[in-house]
Amino acid sequence: MNQPFQLYNTLFKQKELFEPIVPGRVGLYVCGPTVYGEPHLGHARPAITFDILFRYLTHIDYKVRYVRNITDVGHLENDADEGEDKIAKKARLEQLEPMEVAQFYIDSYHHAMDKLNVLRPSIEPRASGHIIEQIEVIEQILDKGYAYISNGSVYFDVPKYNIDFGYGKLSGRILEEMISNTRELDGQDEKRHPADFALWKKAAPEHIMQWRSPWSDGFPGWHIECTAMSTKYLGDHFDIHGGGMDLLFPHHESEVCQATVVHGKESVKYWMHNNMITINGQKMGKSLGNFITLNQFFIGSHPMLERAYLPMTIRYFILQAHYRGTVDFSNDALIAAEKGLQKLYAAEKLLDKLPAKEKSDENITACIQRCYDAMNDDLNTPKLIAELFDAVRIINSVKENHISLTKEDIELLKTNFRLFFFDILGLLPEENSANNNEIVDGLMKMIVEIRQEAKLNKNWAVADAIRNHLTVLGITIKDTKEGAVWEM
Amino acid sequence: MNQPFQLYNTLFKQKELFEPIVPGRVGLYVCGPTVYGEPHLGHARPAITFDILFRYLTHIDYKVRYVRNITDVGHLENDADEGEDKIAKKARLEQLEPMEVAQFYIDSYHHAMDKLNVLRPSIEPRASGHIIEQIEVIEQILDKGYAYISNGSVYFDVPKYNIDFGYGKLSGRILEEMISNTRELDGQDEKRHPADFALWKKAAPEHIMQWRSPWSDGFPGWHIECTAMSTKYLGDHFDIHGGGMDLLFPHHESEVCQATVVHGKESVKYWMHNNMITINGQKMGKSLGNFITLNQFFIGSHPMLERAYLPMTIRYFILQAHYRGTVDFSNDALIAAEKGLQKLYAAEKLLDKLPAKEKSDENITACIQRCYDAMNDDLNTPKLIAELFDAVRIINSVKENHISLTKEDIELLKTNFRLFFFDILGLLPEENSANNNEIVDGLMKMIVEIRQEAKLNKNWAVADAIRNHLTVLGITIKDTKEGAVWEM
Repeated sequence: MNQPFQLYNTLFKQKELFEPIVPGRVGLYVCGPTVYGEPHLGHARPAITFDILFRYLTHIDYKVRYVRNITDVGHLENDADEGEDKIAKKARLEQLEPMEVAQFYIDSYHHAMDKLNVLRPSIEPRASGHIIEQIEVIEQILDKGYAYISNGSVYFDVPKYNIDFGYGKLSGRILEEMISNTRELDGQDEKRHPADFALWKKAAPEHIMQWRSPWSDGFPGWHIECTAMSTKYLGDHFDIHGGGMDLLFPHHESEVCQATVVHGKESVKYWMHNNMITINGQKMGKSLGNFITLNQFFIGSHPMLERAYLPMTIRYFILQAHYRGTVDFSNDALIAAEKGLQKLYAAEKLLDKLPAKEKSDENITACIQRCYDAMNDDLNTPKLIAELFDAVRIINSVKENHISLTKEDIELLKTNFRLFFFDILGLLPEENSANNNEIVDGLMKMIVEIRQEAKLNKNWAVADAIRNHLTVLGITIKDTKEGAVWEM
Repeated sequence: MNQPFQLYNTLFKQKELFEPIVPGRVGLYVCGPTVYGEPHLGHARPAITFDILFRYLTHIDYKVRYVRNITDVGHLENDADEGEDKIAKKARLEQLEPMEVAQFYIDSYHHAMDKLNVLRPSIEPRASGHIIEQIEVIEQILDKGYAYISNGSVYFDVPKYNIDFGYGKLSGRILEEMISNTRELDGQDEKRHPADFALWKKAAPEHIMQWRSPWSDGFPGWHIECTAMSTKYLGDHFDIHGGGMDLLFPHHESEVCQATVVHGKESVKYWMHNNMITINGQKMGKSLGNFITLNQFFIGSHPMLERAYLPMTIRYFILQAHYRGTVDFSNDALIAAEKGLQKLYAAEKLLDKLPAKEKSDENITACIQRCYDAMNDDLNTPKLIAELFDAVRIINSVKENHISLTKEDIELLKTNFRLFFFDILGLLPEENSANNNEIVDGLMKMIVEIRQEAKLNKNWAVADAIRNHLTVLGITIKDTKEGAVWEM
């Protein structure tokens, strides 16, 4: 399926037509979680953004190799080169083996992503599982002269890189301006220049995560893992690298430096960044007390939450905004999202019940094309959702016999509404045990009949009692020309 | 909770009282899957066996670190040292990156294990993620003189080990007898002795999984990963090592050799092995056409399956046998298991409805003690299930007012029945959407009332119609002294 898919390339700050390096195939690398805490709303956004990309590219017939890493070592506090490793610190505090901490939060992350119907990537490599590969990349950078060894640690030489290749291509940072903004930190004296970043850190003897290397027993710097693992699984030139905007600097800028030195050129064709989520207008952060885990959303157990929200409501809420715009969470916004989603579900249920007519009053093919246009326009999910609501209008009008559609158009509408709603946006059909649904349907059929019988026999007491009972259960019964119908 | 837990130690071929190396803590290592195919019934048994061990040890107040590895490299066909790597072969056949194959089957395995309610281990290390650790162990074996380098590969010197430590402690194999049974294979000439096994294999240039090492670009032998990873996460002396009986030789025997050389002593205190599953009396195997994946069981899509079976039926079926006995699968056996499980579910539902009396006719405390006795007797789950059926007899007799129990005894029975049934055997409550259950309950309450009303008014037609309708839906309604009751 040849779709003119455009995406915004952060590298050139413009929308570009997507053209894969190898026809029919896409190599996609996305920065996954640092596993030292419960997954929260901030994890959901990149996961859902790149899930939509993965789903859409697959739908338009690309064979996608989607690599999303797990950072289980090397990511220091404050994203700087000093301070403690986030996972090792958590392990020390909780007196656990760091891998036990990492495994616990990997499992939590997977669990939450499954609930959000985020598809698993093709390969999910861990940083700690690719130490040899990282050492090899560091050796290459040293060989090419863009890194130096200092007291058993290895640092990337940013000023030298800046002269030869120009630093800041991705983030727009200018080296000279960065110096004055750099704080003084312990061990900073190992570096020749404050902007240099660690490729390998020598570990203190008591450090609980360390491996041997040509330079010291230590651990890799944070940025090197993505260069090593993307090269291993996608090669030295691949299509798309994604991540949250918070990773643009220093993480992705450092990746650009590393790859440029090792491969002699930038390895990524399109850089994509999703924007952040704010909470009531504020940045989300543990220190601000507005840090809400996904599980807290699902069960409603945070002081800021008025109640629990279904995973599909969270997913829909995020998709209502374009991935490059900010999303501001509030209870009101989530409740509004839930109502919107309910309308889509209700319309979807009507799809199998639409009456076919001789002619069509609406151009369904054009309507479908507008859905593709929205997705082709840099994954414009809010625009796609607006198109689905236009389809809802059509569905309801056909149901009420205000307009008509042919059998063929109804089939087109049905297939494509479900395609975009379920497969591409990845919104799951409403949760229900199929088995119990059948029983509820069967029981309701019987109850409707009993009520009908009672009305025929002018037994109003029974008919009213049934209606009242059902109201308590949240079921409404309506009398139509075709007989009584019910809905929850 | 101090329980005199006994387990069968394969090393000494006898039941022994479990005494942890460090009071209150247990280090448990279990061989996990080689991820090159869909998880099948043979994967379910060790996973469930050691899940029960993990659950019981945790229940009796041990802090358990449960490590279960994933073999994603190094396991060659036929479990021998020659032939192709199972995962690399699958990747070559399907034209995928080996890690894409591994990831796919890791995800399938997790999915099936989640369905079977097998708890995730504390740490789930991958062989490919611990190459450095494996190289370090191989170096130690070389340093101690129990391995030799041959054409870039490294082999363990079994005859030398045999002289110094005595080979075959775990499996009872005698070195002299093994020689005559060894087939001639390609590359066998690299070995000094046919019983020697590979610690590191030099890779052919076209081999798609290889890492550098002091000896060659290659990959680790199959057995070394477990020694490297158990040492890393559990130390050089740990409590329990488990796995399927099929792994006893050569895999676990080789682990004993490696650990004995490296640590100067056996590192495992208790070795535990679960027995195999046969299908209609035959060994399960891809070539025999009786290879049934777990997913096929869950959806009933294999010619040998008469229908689908719920994951809990599979779990209960496996638990009905002691882990050291064989289990023979057949449709009849599974259907019988399902019936047994239904009786336990039915009794569990009555627990909240038992009438309390002045005195107790049964000794509930003794009954509970017999449940612990069963588990303390080398995880005797069939015995535990028999005790639960004795509890079912008590529950039904109390319900029918044939015997009586005090309020305190009913509470004891309730808590402990659920403890052993749900928490220790890990059988999940019957699957149902809570939400829909409430609606079904609400609708049924109304229907029962309508029927009652009809009968009072001698409106037999309506009463009978309701009963017939319900029968079609699989719901039976019974008139008791306390009024009408229904069940599915």
